[in-house]
Amino acid sequence: MPRWEHGSEERLKQAAMDLFSEQGFEDTSVVQIAERSGVTTRTFFRYFSDKREVLFADSDTLRSELVRAVAEAPDVVDPLQVVVGVLSTFDWEGRGRDIQRRRYAVIAANPELMERELIKNARMADEFAEALRARGVDARLARLAARVGREIFLLAYEEWLVGGSADLAVIAKDMTALLWSMQSPETTTPPSR
Amino acid sequence: MPRWEHGSEERLKQAAMDLFSEQGFEDTSVVQIAERSGVTTRTFFRYFSDKREVLFADSDTLRSELVRAVAEAPDVVDPLQVVVGVLSTFDWEGRGRDIQRRRYAVIAANPELMERELIKNARMADEFAEALRARGVDARLARLAARVGREIFLLAYEEWLVGGSADLAVIAKDMTALLWSMQSPETTTPPSR
Repeated sequence: MPRWEHGSEERLKQAAMDLFSEQGFEDTSVVQIAERSGVTTRTFFRYFSDKREVLFADSDTLRSELVRAVAEAPDVVDPLQVVVGVLSTFDWEGRGRDIQRRRYAVIAANPELMERELIKNARMADEFAEALRARGVDARLARLAARVGREIFLLAYEEWLVGGSADLAVIAKDMTALLWSMQSPETTTPPSR
Repeated sequence: MPRWEHGSEERLKQAAMDLFSEQGFEDTSVVQIAERSGVTTRTFFRYFSDKREVLFADSDTLRSELVRAVAEAPDVVDPLQVVVGVLSTFDWEGRGRDIQRRRYAVIAANPELMERELIKNARMADEFAEALRARGVDARLARLAARVGREIFLLAYEEWLVGGSADLAVIAKDMTALLWSMQSPETTTPPSR
């Protein structure tokens, strides 16, 4: 990519997020995003296939990275901890909490975007389960750890987004402890596998 | 509704599911569904707004019913058990396992339908959490119980759909026990609430 375009992608993302917050996702056009970024629409389409992609462009790379971390975990004795650990110790802070908070608000306000987000999260859990299974974890346990681990993380992530200075890994650990606190005596019989 | 139409809705559902299974959701038209059911397209549209609605028409009523059951649970001392219990003891068998299995297969094969299914499941968990909170459960605990309980149920439901004669409530109980079996010693410190 030519040197003069350096920073265009970030500027486009920032401008899109500003416009989505100011006037809503539906009422924002690609032309407006390009104008606000000081680039042409042609440049916009070099980075994103449509305005929805501005919100999801990174998510496939991110998912691959997280799935690889699960696949390469030092050990998988505690598969739930592997999933929660990988998700919550990722450098979310480095990606900017403010932009993630705004992205989340835009998505939460639009059912179509929320559907997209949910299917991406579902796919991530499926791939986590597959990675755990490949490491020798029982298939059923792998699925359960992946799905419950994802929920623990998402709840912690939502708190982290709106919260002050709390560390995401700490919130996730807290959330896991809260889950274990719900264990009732009559449900602790070993599973009949 | 006039007496002569009695059974049209069920016939339409059955025909739609047959066609979706045979030739795929995308390639099935409302005209074909109506023809196979021996009714007019006008009758089809009296029951469903489009072919997608054939798969989701019941889901709002079903969700209300399940949310009410959570709201009216005898006690909410064990909120996770309330959620798993309400979901897994519902009369799914009475709704026909075969038609649910086929419905699920059609949805799983089509990302757009899966997105719809996921957002409905997400809404259900939100409403469960709200119902628990209204009963006095701490908000954070209510959200966690609703989301984890939904995942336990969904995994059990998926096994039940493909399985033989196993009882869904028994599978769900087993799945809950499997979750507790993942509790590791270092994560059992009480949460700092």
